[in-house]
Amino acid sequence: MQQPTLVALVVLLCSLHLVDGGKVLVCPVDGSHWINMKVLIEELHSRGHEITVLRPSDSWYIKAESPYYKSITIFPSGFDEEQFGSFVIRMMNMRRQGASLWTRISLEYELVEQFYQMNKQSLEMLGKLFENTTMMQRLHDDKYDLVLTDPAIGIGVLLGHRLGLPLVFNVRWTIQGEGHHAIAPSPFSYVPIPGTELTDKMTFLQRLKNILYFFFTRLQIWYVTDPNYTPFVQRYFGNDVHYMELFQSADIWLMRNDFTFEFPRPTMPNIIYMSGFQCKPSKPLSKELEDFVQSSGEHGVIVMTLGTLVAKLPEDITEEIASAFAQLPQKVIWRHKGKRPSTLGNNTLLLEWLPQNDLLGHPKTRAFVAHGGTNGMQEAIYHGVPLVGLPLMFDQQDNFFRMKARGVAKVLDIATVNKDNFLEALKAVLYEPTYREKMKTLSSLHRDQPTKPLDRAMFWIEFVMRHKGAKHLRTDSYKMSMIQYHSIDVAAFLFAVISLVFIVFISAVKFLWRRVFCRSKVKKE
Amino acid sequence: MQQPTLVALVVLLCSLHLVDGGKVLVCPVDGSHWINMKVLIEELHSRGHEITVLRPSDSWYIKAESPYYKSITIFPSGFDEEQFGSFVIRMMNMRRQGASLWTRISLEYELVEQFYQMNKQSLEMLGKLFENTTMMQRLHDDKYDLVLTDPAIGIGVLLGHRLGLPLVFNVRWTIQGEGHHAIAPSPFSYVPIPGTELTDKMTFLQRLKNILYFFFTRLQIWYVTDPNYTPFVQRYFGNDVHYMELFQSADIWLMRNDFTFEFPRPTMPNIIYMSGFQCKPSKPLSKELEDFVQSSGEHGVIVMTLGTLVAKLPEDITEEIASAFAQLPQKVIWRHKGKRPSTLGNNTLLLEWLPQNDLLGHPKTRAFVAHGGTNGMQEAIYHGVPLVGLPLMFDQQDNFFRMKARGVAKVLDIATVNKDNFLEALKAVLYEPTYREKMKTLSSLHRDQPTKPLDRAMFWIEFVMRHKGAKHLRTDSYKMSMIQYHSIDVAAFLFAVISLVFIVFISAVKFLWRRVFCRSKVKKE
Repeated sequence: MQQPTLVALVVLLCSLHLVDGGKVLVCPVDGSHWINMKVLIEELHSRGHEITVLRPSDSWYIKAESPYYKSITIFPSGFDEEQFGSFVIRMMNMRRQGASLWTRISLEYELVEQFYQMNKQSLEMLGKLFENTTMMQRLHDDKYDLVLTDPAIGIGVLLGHRLGLPLVFNVRWTIQGEGHHAIAPSPFSYVPIPGTELTDKMTFLQRLKNILYFFFTRLQIWYVTDPNYTPFVQRYFGNDVHYMELFQSADIWLMRNDFTFEFPRPTMPNIIYMSGFQCKPSKPLSKELEDFVQSSGEHGVIVMTLGTLVAKLPEDITEEIASAFAQLPQKVIWRHKGKRPSTLGNNTLLLEWLPQNDLLGHPKTRAFVAHGGTNGMQEAIYHGVPLVGLPLMFDQQDNFFRMKARGVAKVLDIATVNKDNFLEALKAVLYEPTYREKMKTLSSLHRDQPTKPLDRAMFWIEFVMRHKGAKHLRTDSYKMSMIQYHSIDVAAFLFAVISLVFIVFISAVKFLWRRVFCRSKVKKE
Repeated sequence: MQQPTLVALVVLLCSLHLVDGGKVLVCPVDGSHWINMKVLIEELHSRGHEITVLRPSDSWYIKAESPYYKSITIFPSGFDEEQFGSFVIRMMNMRRQGASLWTRISLEYELVEQFYQMNKQSLEMLGKLFENTTMMQRLHDDKYDLVLTDPAIGIGVLLGHRLGLPLVFNVRWTIQGEGHHAIAPSPFSYVPIPGTELTDKMTFLQRLKNILYFFFTRLQIWYVTDPNYTPFVQRYFGNDVHYMELFQSADIWLMRNDFTFEFPRPTMPNIIYMSGFQCKPSKPLSKELEDFVQSSGEHGVIVMTLGTLVAKLPEDITEEIASAFAQLPQKVIWRHKGKRPSTLGNNTLLLEWLPQNDLLGHPKTRAFVAHGGTNGMQEAIYHGVPLVGLPLMFDQQDNFFRMKARGVAKVLDIATVNKDNFLEALKAVLYEPTYREKMKTLSSLHRDQPTKPLDRAMFWIEFVMRHKGAKHLRTDSYKMSMIQYHSIDVAAFLFAVISLVFIVFISAVKFLWRRVFCRSKVKKE
């Protein structure tokens, strides 16, 4: 008689969402990606889970000591902040100087080559870790419940599989491109490939562009990703295993995205949207900053920052921007490193760091000049602040394209930005009410969710702990070949059968026809 | 200065999920479908919304008077319970007598014809309603916030569009087949077509079967649905409008399904899974019933019911079933109308109606003998009771196939069921622990969700009220033709271009070859 009661108790405990403190192994990506991974780690810690972070020995941001996690310092990631920052500056300068297409392509190639080398180096070091039996034994013995990783680099995926642990992704980009494209059907006809600057409504020519772009992104995978990952995976996981399989078998994809940001598109049951999980109500500003903000009076404040990667802009751009700001009645708070522009107005405050969330949530804030990183975009949506965009690289152009398509942003090209067009864009966003109104609508849609994004993320991480995965939510379709997945073999078979029937029919008709015809001929003769 | 504060207040109100009592127009489907629509209506009512139900004049279940809703009685649905029940009995008898394939096909055809006639009649009457300006004006003047409908029949979809109101679906089946197939990509290679009894993992031959079945279901649409709906839609909505467009533009699809029941598959952002929304903890049984249940001692109880449609089984089957039950030490509670089987044991209690949810949630309940209606399946999962299946028609076979694939049910064929195989199936489910264990696991997965299914359904209905739709969650892909959707035009264009390039290249080579060749020939000569 006790059995059903016991089972009922287990069911009850599960339904109460209780989990004893779990053990999470985190394989983060450095830089801006770490900023949002840290949000998840801090929340997991506050819920009583024990977190271990594998940090690269050359990390920019990931500290070895933290009240929120233990860390294990592993090999260098090969990611050099200095080199990268200077690369961005070089690219901006080139774009401004109207460099030849060839120069720009070679620069793009250089970037791709850098990523290639970074992945190559990481995999070499991961191989050494795999062969370090003491270390691997330690990781095994630690008995983690799951690996939480950002699959923009494949280290966490590979390590998770090596340790036989469930995988949870904190994801927007993967080594194969945008996250959805790796597991959800993405019809070319209404799912734009990132970088195309297309919406979900396309003309014939746009759909053509979308497909051509798709093949272009495949080239990158064939020439950059596969040569690195395929031999590694074959060596450590078996000859018939492909990285895609390991990667697509992740239990939960916590997607840094939602449909106030992304165009509507097919999704999968194990994709959980957590866009805005890092957003929170603003806290009061420092006395100094608050005074500055209040001094703007009815005109309000403009906030400008270009993210973690680029604090310094080329001087000619900063001069143009500063002189544009100087012409406005608003106050401006600008995150800026480097030389103070000579054209800077009295209304502009330069800071080396600014409390972005608190400023965006301030009722006096009227516009946000940003580079288009996902974190900033989501904070702008959360707080309902319209945008002026200066996208620099990576997904920034694409992110801003989405904001522009929704009518909540003006976007400028870093190659052609000057005082006049910058001022024009700012004035539009400040004084044409549609930008603010549409952003408020977007913000209210984004905030109107049955659960908070961060709680949702926590729920599903703990779900994976409770059930040792989320197998019922993920398809095994990735185990099929492309030919099987798209039913090309069945179509070919059906085509062959129909052709055969047709040929037999035609032959029979011919045969009969000849017999009848010949007979009548014979008779005639 | 007041504007931002006002906007902030609006955002705050939205984020608090407050809605003044809204007005909902409900277009239900009668019979078992009404049972679950009623759950939504009662919950909407308890949240302060005003509900108006359009009820058919010949309704089985939908009462004109209710504390939960106002009703407007419209035309008859043409759905005759008596006729339908007797049809099911005829079909069962035929299957038991091993009727010829031809007889069975003609019976299936008769069923399809019945649906055709039912749809035809409904649309005729709906046309009359559309032309009744007084009535239509009244519906307009009532200023509903949305239409909540079950798209198993198209009346609600058409009326919603006629009134220009947002649509929310309470859906599993549509007039075009299973709900997902109408809006989410459904690759043939891992999404089984209902009726195929295939899982999400298929061999080549199974994938072939799946595709052939797909074309078969299309035939039904071409010959049954389209001839009814196309002329109607063209008449009232314009010549270039197709029913599919009206239907696919629904804002929210509340799906009576989830992935403890359905195989994992692609989904869409506006599909909200609410499987189990009708389930609730069991209430105490009546004194009489509780005494009977307790008298089962350690053996526990078996519950049997075959749903709303078939309370009476052919006598030969009831005799077999009764004699099987009689051999078991368990107590049995059997919902049964009609003649008392002569073989009935003392352990079996016949009831004309039974409190299904309360019995399934009773700790003494060991097994559930069911026909495979979605409601019953979901209650069994919710309470974690393993199943013995006697599927009769519609989706019942398919539902049980899913339960069987998960190892939580034994399924019998009504054509061949007899005392021995019924007893064998019952004993397996009662005494082999895997059935119960797997069902408990499924139940714990089903219950472990961030929000309760019914709350989730309410949230999204109220979301549509607050935002007058959920446009950002639905694609407009349905506006494309099949050729555009599948990029066939782009593929054809690319093929033509590649062919042209190839032809020009070959021609050029030929031309050059001939010139060189001819020259050397001329020279030789």
